[in-house]
Amino acid sequence: MTYSKCLSDPNISRRIILNDPKKRNALSLAMLTSLQGNILTGIDDKDLRVIIISAQGLVFSSGHDLKELTSAQGRDYHTRVFSVCSEVMSLIQDLPVPVIAMVNGIATAAGCQLVASCDIAVATDKSSFATPGVNVGLFCSTPGVAIGRAVPRKIAMEMLFTGRPITAQEALLHGLVSKVVPEECLEEETLAIARRICESSRPVVALGKAAFQRQMAQGRDAAYATAAAVMVDNLALRDGQEGIRAFLEKRRPLWSNSTEKAHD
Amino acid sequence: MTYSKCLSDPNISRRIILNDPKKRNALSLAMLTSLQGNILTGIDDKDLRVIIISAQGLVFSSGHDLKELTSAQGRDYHTRVFSVCSEVMSLIQDLPVPVIAMVNGIATAAGCQLVASCDIAVATDKSSFATPGVNVGLFCSTPGVAIGRAVPRKIAMEMLFTGRPITAQEALLHGLVSKVVPEECLEEETLAIARRICESSRPVVALGKAAFQRQMAQGRDAAYATAAAVMVDNLALRDGQEGIRAFLEKRRPLWSNSTEKAHD
Amino acid sequence: MTYSKCLSDPNISRRIILNDPKKRNALSLAMLTSLQGNILTGIDDKDLRVIIISAQGLVFSSGHDLKELTSAQGRDYHTRVFSVCSEVMSLIQDLPVPVIAMVNGIATAAGCQLVASCDIAVATDKSSFATPGVNVGLFCSTPGVAIGRAVPRKIAMEMLFTGRPITAQEALLHGLVSKVVPEECLEEETLAIARRICESSRPVVALGKAAFQRQMAQGRDAAYATAAAVMVDNLALRDGQEGIRAFLEKRRPLWSNSTEKAHD
Repeated sequence: MTYSKCLSDPNISRRIILNDPKKRNALSLAMLTSLQGNILTGIDDKDLRVIIISAQGLVFSSGHDLKELTSAQGRDYHTRVFSVCSEVMSLIQDLPVPVIAMVNGIATAAGCQLVASCDIAVATDKSSFATPGVNVGLFCSTPGVAIGRAVPRKIAMEMLFTGRPITAQEALLHGLVSKVVPEECLEEETLAIARRICESSRPVVALGKAAFQRQMAQGRDAAYATAAAVMVDNLALRDGQEGIRAFLEKRRPLWSNSTEKAHD
Repeated sequence: MTYSKCLSDPNISRRIILNDPKKRNALSLAMLTSLQGNILTGIDDKDLRVIIISAQGLVFSSGHDLKELTSAQGRDYHTRVFSVCSEVMSLIQDLPVPVIAMVNGIATAAGCQLVASCDIAVATDKSSFATPGVNVGLFCSTPGVAIGRAVPRKIAMEMLFTGRPITAQEALLHGLVSKVVPEECLEEETLAIARRICESSRPVVALGKAAFQRQMAQGRDAAYATAAAVMVDNLALRDGQEGIRAFLEKRRPLWSNSTEKAHD
Repeated sequence: MTYSKCLSDPNISRRIILNDPKKRNALSLAMLTSLQGNILTGIDDKDLRVIIISAQGLVFSSGHDLKELTSAQGRDYHTRVFSVCSEVMSLIQDLPVPVIAMVNGIATAAGCQLVASCDIAVATDKSSFATPGVNVGLFCSTPGVAIGRAVPRKIAMEMLFTGRPITAQEALLHGLVSKVVPEECLEEETLAIARRICESSRPVVALGKAAFQRQMAQGRDAAYATAAAVMVDNLALRDGQEGIRAFLEKRRPLWSNSTEKAHD
């Protein structure tokens, strides 16, 4: 696989672009359902290695569509909105491939939650991040699940209680994003990370991502039991053995991307 | 509500000032009990929106009064001291209103724990933070509960094992405080944050603060179930609907601060 | 105890030096077993106060020895390697004395995990840290246990998914190391921290370290119950009382380093 193939082949690096800039890329129920569908399409295709989520326009995403949250819509509808939203955010973390947020602009409320939920986030230095729900009488409690697990607690609480935006640099400092770059480098930097991921074996990455999520929810001793068993399984994969062989033979590995075992 | 009303009206923004500078604002049992009483007085008053804890003198608080911890006082007394201390620290996090620490000076041991336990902390650049109990043969184990949940583990451990103070900038970097300002801006910056909180609906903030604490103690899926249910309850509040209506009508919201429902 | 005694007396400050620079200080099963033995020797000696782990050569440690992870070795051998590795990493955190990593060079995979597992880490500014297993088809799942608990989640995931090294400054920013110094100050700075620890009472530090690990695995209320009980036990130690007395009498404490009680 060459770099350019990775870049150009949609089966390897999939781009999902939030494309409703007039509505500030609001995560309406329709948008969330569409996002979920886009994420899941062909997710088991062994050629797919990484997903990049970006947005059209000056706003990455402004969060929920407030028109969908009025009394007129009713409690059952509200329940459905937050249930689908939580599903999509969790789905991103449970996918077999890494998901990168590529952010250029402001990400607020559930839009900020979306950034926090991605595995990796690259942002331009003009981007900012906020949970301003409290200003409209709707505390950002669901965004708080993702943001509270991404940044230190006091940072999350100041964001939630005041609604004040933090800059891209503050977001980097506190772990909400992985990298901050000038606007003209956003695409290049994001694709460089995507390419590195594309150079790896898909089943190895899938095993590792799932193990990371699983062990982080456990106590240390249980986490080590989980992760040690995964290391042994990883070594039993064809690509686990191919990678080590290539390293010892000082050559580039040739991944099968197969989930078959090399040995029992 | 105007800004000035928020500033001047003690029913909206309550100030609690540790006022024993000669004893370095030590958290004696009497001081802890007084703090607890001050925090709880009128806590259910719907006009109260935020509490600010600050201190007289050059030391924010030096922690426990060591005279209370000698053998002469006895084990039962010691037990009572740490039990009341843990109660006060937990109470701050369980209150229906946010608590801001306004720090100008050194905060050590249980004094540092107090800062870590507040929802938001603003500190002057001359402030510092330490857990020096190990120097007097009393490891800061209870402060470690709050500090270990506020900053990265290695930062907490170096503080606990060496007793070395960290600067305000280091505290900001690692999430122990939310903001660092020059001394002459401390009051102004703290009150600006308090005012932003005062502009919000009390029941919305109360619901959000409780939800944040609850979901952070859960695994991700349970946390989303908790937070999604809270979002739906939040929308059923009068102020949840008023905030959204005001946003859609491009006007300032008029909070009822009532816990009554707008719809079922 | 004088500073120089602490420095020179191996019974007080023990140095463990990874000493296989030709193999990049790989953590082979033999190296791990040797490390475990070195750590445990005389661990209950009341004169031992701190352990410093450093390395010969330009690489702190490159992680597992890949030759041990081929199919030829077989699944049972792999299981043993990761089991012993997890044991050593956990042992470091469960010891009664603090462990300091003194790092000058690159630490990768299980080598990076070793740094993350130490209580305190001092690194030179030319050091770097990576989890590049994914490049050789072996996702760093066990290192992810220690690193995921040391740094923010997005930082850990970018390291794990891309294998990209982070600089010493980034490691400091995100909590993977406690301090970064120029190469010529590494020994001096590390020993200064070791000396501070040597000035403390061993049973007080042991009680505190164990309590910190225990309470961090609990929810807040249980954590406070644990830590409050430990504070009371700490005060019942001879050195708990000696430290407070010395402070009140404005003199240096004389530690017995005894686990006997001062009172019931």
